[in-house]
Amino acid sequence: MEKLNVAILGATGAVGQRFIQLLDNHPWFQVAELVGKSSAGKRYGDAVNWILDDSPPADVMDMIVKPLDAELDSLLVFSALPKEAAKDREPQLAAAGHVVCTNASAYRMTVDVPLLLPEVNHEHVGLIDVQRANRGWTTGALIANSNCTTMPLVMALAPLRKFGISKLHVVSEQAISGAGYPGVASLDIIDNVIPYVPGDEGKMETEPLKILGSFNGESIDEYEMVVGATATRVAVIDGHLVNLSIEFEENPSIDDLLDAWATYETPAEIALLPSAPERPVQYLPQIDRPQPRRDRMAGNGMMTSIGRLRECPILDYKFAALAHNTIRGAAGCSVLNAELLAVKGYLGEFQPVAIAVGD
Amino acid sequence: MEKLNVAILGATGAVGQRFIQLLDNHPWFQVAELVGKSSAGKRYGDAVNWILDDSPPADVMDMIVKPLDAELDSLLVFSALPKEAAKDREPQLAAAGHVVCTNASAYRMTVDVPLLLPEVNHEHVGLIDVQRANRGWTTGALIANSNCTTMPLVMALAPLRKFGISKLHVVSEQAISGAGYPGVASLDIIDNVIPYVPGDEGKMETEPLKILGSFNGESIDEYEMVVGATATRVAVIDGHLVNLSIEFEENPSIDDLLDAWATYETPAEIALLPSAPERPVQYLPQIDRPQPRRDRMAGNGMMTSIGRLRECPILDYKFAALAHNTIRGAAGCSVLNAELLAVKGYLGEFQPVAIAVGD
Amino acid sequence: MEKLNVAILGATGAVGQRFIQLLDNHPWFQVAELVGKSSAGKRYGDAVNWILDDSPPADVMDMIVKPLDAELDSLLVFSALPKEAAKDREPQLAAAGHVVCTNASAYRMTVDVPLLLPEVNHEHVGLIDVQRANRGWTTGALIANSNCTTMPLVMALAPLRKFGISKLHVVSEQAISGAGYPGVASLDIIDNVIPYVPGDEGKMETEPLKILGSFNGESIDEYEMVVGATATRVAVIDGHLVNLSIEFEENPSIDDLLDAWATYETPAEIALLPSAPERPVQYLPQIDRPQPRRDRMAGNGMMTSIGRLRECPILDYKFAALAHNTIRGAAGCSVLNAELLAVKGYLGEFQPVAIAVGD
Amino acid sequence: MEKLNVAILGATGAVGQRFIQLLDNHPWFQVAELVGKSSAGKRYGDAVNWILDDSPPADVMDMIVKPLDAELDSLLVFSALPKEAAKDREPQLAAAGHVVCTNASAYRMTVDVPLLLPEVNHEHVGLIDVQRANRGWTTGALIANSNCTTMPLVMALAPLRKFGISKLHVVSEQAISGAGYPGVASLDIIDNVIPYVPGDEGKMETEPLKILGSFNGESIDEYEMVVGATATRVAVIDGHLVNLSIEFEENPSIDDLLDAWATYETPAEIALLPSAPERPVQYLPQIDRPQPRRDRMAGNGMMTSIGRLRECPILDYKFAALAHNTIRGAAGCSVLNAELLAVKGYLGEFQPVAIAVGD
Repeated sequence: MEKLNVAILGATGAVGQRFIQLLDNHPWFQVAELVGKSSAGKRYGDAVNWILDDSPPADVMDMIVKPLDAELDSLLVFSALPKEAAKDREPQLAAAGHVVCTNASAYRMTVDVPLLLPEVNHEHVGLIDVQRANRGWTTGALIANSNCTTMPLVMALAPLRKFGISKLHVVSEQAISGAGYPGVASLDIIDNVIPYVPGDEGKMETEPLKILGSFNGESIDEYEMVVGATATRVAVIDGHLVNLSIEFEENPSIDDLLDAWATYETPAEIALLPSAPERPVQYLPQIDRPQPRRDRMAGNGMMTSIGRLRECPILDYKFAALAHNTIRGAAGCSVLNAELLAVKGYLGEFQPVAIAVGD
Repeated sequence: MEKLNVAILGATGAVGQRFIQLLDNHPWFQVAELVGKSSAGKRYGDAVNWILDDSPPADVMDMIVKPLDAELDSLLVFSALPKEAAKDREPQLAAAGHVVCTNASAYRMTVDVPLLLPEVNHEHVGLIDVQRANRGWTTGALIANSNCTTMPLVMALAPLRKFGISKLHVVSEQAISGAGYPGVASLDIIDNVIPYVPGDEGKMETEPLKILGSFNGESIDEYEMVVGATATRVAVIDGHLVNLSIEFEENPSIDDLLDAWATYETPAEIALLPSAPERPVQYLPQIDRPQPRRDRMAGNGMMTSIGRLRECPILDYKFAALAHNTIRGAAGCSVLNAELLAVKGYLGEFQPVAIAVGD
Repeated sequence: MEKLNVAILGATGAVGQRFIQLLDNHPWFQVAELVGKSSAGKRYGDAVNWILDDSPPADVMDMIVKPLDAELDSLLVFSALPKEAAKDREPQLAAAGHVVCTNASAYRMTVDVPLLLPEVNHEHVGLIDVQRANRGWTTGALIANSNCTTMPLVMALAPLRKFGISKLHVVSEQAISGAGYPGVASLDIIDNVIPYVPGDEGKMETEPLKILGSFNGESIDEYEMVVGATATRVAVIDGHLVNLSIEFEENPSIDDLLDAWATYETPAEIALLPSAPERPVQYLPQIDRPQPRRDRMAGNGMMTSIGRLRECPILDYKFAALAHNTIRGAAGCSVLNAELLAVKGYLGEFQPVAIAVGD
Repeated sequence: MEKLNVAILGATGAVGQRFIQLLDNHPWFQVAELVGKSSAGKRYGDAVNWILDDSPPADVMDMIVKPLDAELDSLLVFSALPKEAAKDREPQLAAAGHVVCTNASAYRMTVDVPLLLPEVNHEHVGLIDVQRANRGWTTGALIANSNCTTMPLVMALAPLRKFGISKLHVVSEQAISGAGYPGVASLDIIDNVIPYVPGDEGKMETEPLKILGSFNGESIDEYEMVVGATATRVAVIDGHLVNLSIEFEENPSIDDLLDAWATYETPAEIALLPSAPERPVQYLPQIDRPQPRRDRMAGNGMMTSIGRLRECPILDYKFAALAHNTIRGAAGCSVLNAELLAVKGYLGEFQPVAIAVGD
């Protein structure tokens, strides 16, 4: 199988670097173009201040970063652009025929843009047809993934949708990598907590309604529940922890909830995508888990870990959930989204090799 | 004025050290006896592994630590004993005529033991008379202060009692010093959050009801509200932060709440106690405060800082509160309690110099 | 006594804030003018992102920040400017008659600028007369203090000069506040060490020679020794630790060195300056001290702590030294320098009240 | 190929856990027996407080931990015992016919015990024959690996031996995992440096002489150089950084040193061992590397990273080196040692499958 060339927008930033790391040796996709603003025209190895472990993969080191307005050859484009840059450039690229999988927040809540999370709402890809019809796009498309703090919350809730979630109270303890680089100053966070993360409370209160909603063939019917969110920042490198309290319309027992998580399965075609974790969620029985440093890399950073389920005196139940914010919550989810698009036939002629069940 | 000699139980531990630090140069009290278990018989300077800043005050360095069962000369005894040791020894000392101000949890919820917090419930000292009558104690007494995480919560709520608090949802982000020494292993907390603190959720759900309750001359009528608590540990040295969501019976506005905190005053006799902060609470207008490292030393570690008041989609309002857990939340509150006992005449013949209003 | 008005250049930065904090309630000096670049024209309370504990003193909150090129009324000017801005502006202000005590590195090694450290080289103030003569300045002057990592090194060495220091090998473990604000990104330093601090190795290798040198009436004869320095950054808020290995021309014993530190005294006129610590250095006998968090505030952040003296298989002896980098190593030293200038008569007519020995 | 069963002594401790993690899916060895003291008789999954990422491998969870004095079935024994327990038990097991690869320090400097580091001194395995002859052991043997801080130092020096190292000055910045679990209290290390690590300075001053020495057929002729070491502890999870200054008998240039590291190769039979890194050392050209968090996992935690080579005003050159202390510096090296013993024929009948060059 020939790999599909892909471009990365915002390739030198924190999420851009994570895209490059995750796509290194990817079985289907090949990084072919890097795009940046201040780094345009430079050799990637010279332009990047690599903040992840180790060093950038050798084969991207010598690529010359293209300017933001460059015409791109790659059908598939991953975007790690900041919101404002994304706002302009992403629809232009989609209009020009590119499939843009974006981590930016600019269009997440736009009605004809799928806020895609394969295990949870793979049927939302149907919105791409609506989008193309609406906008007159042919091969192009724009697909968003959620905010990084929304991610563990939604992954933990998806298996519980069937019990009718009516109210959700969440307090997050978020990692510093969520703020990009240089991001949070060390003088602000060592021996400290910052009880405020700009913008994230609103995202946690709105994005889950769309993600958990159902596609009616034309648009998304939002899930009906009330969410109240508090976002705080702690001295953790990677891994967003959310403390959830939840009220159901129905009356599930503790065992019902545990069972819902334990038996939560995704269709085989999704479970077999290269970046899909073996299981989307795991429940940890230890009383002091999940913990960011110890559980963020579960499923290569793509699994959500849940723990501490117990009754809540205010709502019905309380528990904690955790996901890796720059893998599952950002670049990794975009890659998984693109893999889903591939098997669903939204990436032009590209056809991944048949994945045999049981592989 | 001659100072009153005091004894410190558990003098080498984390809270014991804080007692020694806070009582250094105290205007009324003089550390005269140190008591310990494994350190008994040793010179304090040799026995202690001093974990606070700097070094122990020179005048305690050469004191010989007395055994736990030693007869004590000091009327006033501060206890930093672990729960089990406290359970046995504290009532013995009170029965033997000592006034024991304890930081241990053993008797906090005992009906005839005041869970004292001078700015909030100074009238609970009346319970000492009940206690003495019940138990046949004459000069002795046992007075407890609250759990260190309960503290910021109760201090922030006290000015709001008048609006009728019906429900309280709290998620704490607690400092490592709350676990004593050696306490939390560094391998457990650096680049990490531990989403569980043994015992603290239950304490936050029960202690506030007693502290905010009213003394009916015989016992405490507990405040009626429902509390649901989640306790987590973060990589912070000192300062417990609590994220609160609250529902009122009445319908106060944002301004009503701000006004309640701004005008919260304590009787002059309490405000003038040596360890009392100028004001018990302060509201910080910055959107990202209170923060543990920057606000824990407000009022010499005795003031509670509040911030981020806003509406809550689930209950009525949300805000954050912070207090220094080993000063306001432990040793400092015990000392303030003892100061209150002094002016209320519960420390035998001891009479502090008259404090002039305006001093 | 009427206080002397002072101006602070670079008032919103990390060191500028420390100046404001240290000058709050200073017995001799009164902050009267704040100067900044991007903050010019704004109310200080609005312009500053206060990164120290608590909040700025109330009386500076409403001051309007003046532009960098403003004419100033204050005779005494403290500068926390970045190097480039300092290069231009500081000599202009000195030429205009102001006494500039600067923390910037621009002129530290300039031959007629004193690199002043009162306990160590107070006689270097004589260089001000040379400077004024050279440059035709009348009331103005420019006085520098050392790099923040040079500070603990020089303070620990000064008492040992008499043994003839020939070689010095130093490896520093420096706090993040040394890089200003926002300075070191949290993603770079949590769970990490950065084995390089731009510029600091060179400063440690040159500044001590001037500071420890002797004033010959016209210029400074540099102290003759060879210094080799390695500078690293660690996850510490404040407090630079240096690991020193040292070779002497003479043959002092361990006891000679301990005695030299124990008996190191400064002239009474310096010991009595408001910001002078009781003693400039202290030797800590515990095997695991000095430690940044526990010892940085010794002497209100102005004392240098030394420990771990032992023989070195390569040079003669090894030991560790520590000082607070933004107090003793920056703003605090500038203030102490200005206090020395006051008693030496270099601040125009200003005369501090006589300080009685024994006060 | 049938795998060789192995036992792990001290299986629940920090290094014991690392053994279990590294041996999970090892191509040659199979964990068959777990041995512990306080955990004896318990199911491993119940006894262990797993401090590494994720959870223990499923297949060890249900093993019952054997007591320290149990007779073992496995020929090969990995020891993570504390020094005192190792002192008694390791020679007993070797005398009983077991090949003991130990991480304990008890016998490192014993003349007939190889202090083995395959890339550096694989010929020291010959000492096993001497040992067996001395002690009348037949199939048994005792092989040690070095202290975790000695490791990066020795790995970086080995390629430079040929230039005649005469003096070495080292200052370490060590990770907390080096102290085991619970090890360093968080109250001691957050926002702090501890300038002392018990025992490690002596080990760094002696172990390298033996490791870099040559086997004369009967014993090790120690390498002749003088080492002076300072050991400090910093707030890093894993990865010991050493700052080295070095003096040579010969006069190598910077390029000579870089070339020595770049061309440092190990015999093919060692390079092909399952746990051997592709190259033992790498030189990082970035001015601020190596860094613990970013470089500790190079070569799956088995490669040593070097950087910042430059001239030293005191000795000849300075540079920094880094290795993962619980992988390369502990369990990983023991496993690599055992792999070397396998191909050298010291593990009884066990013969790993032929490893083809180029595999």
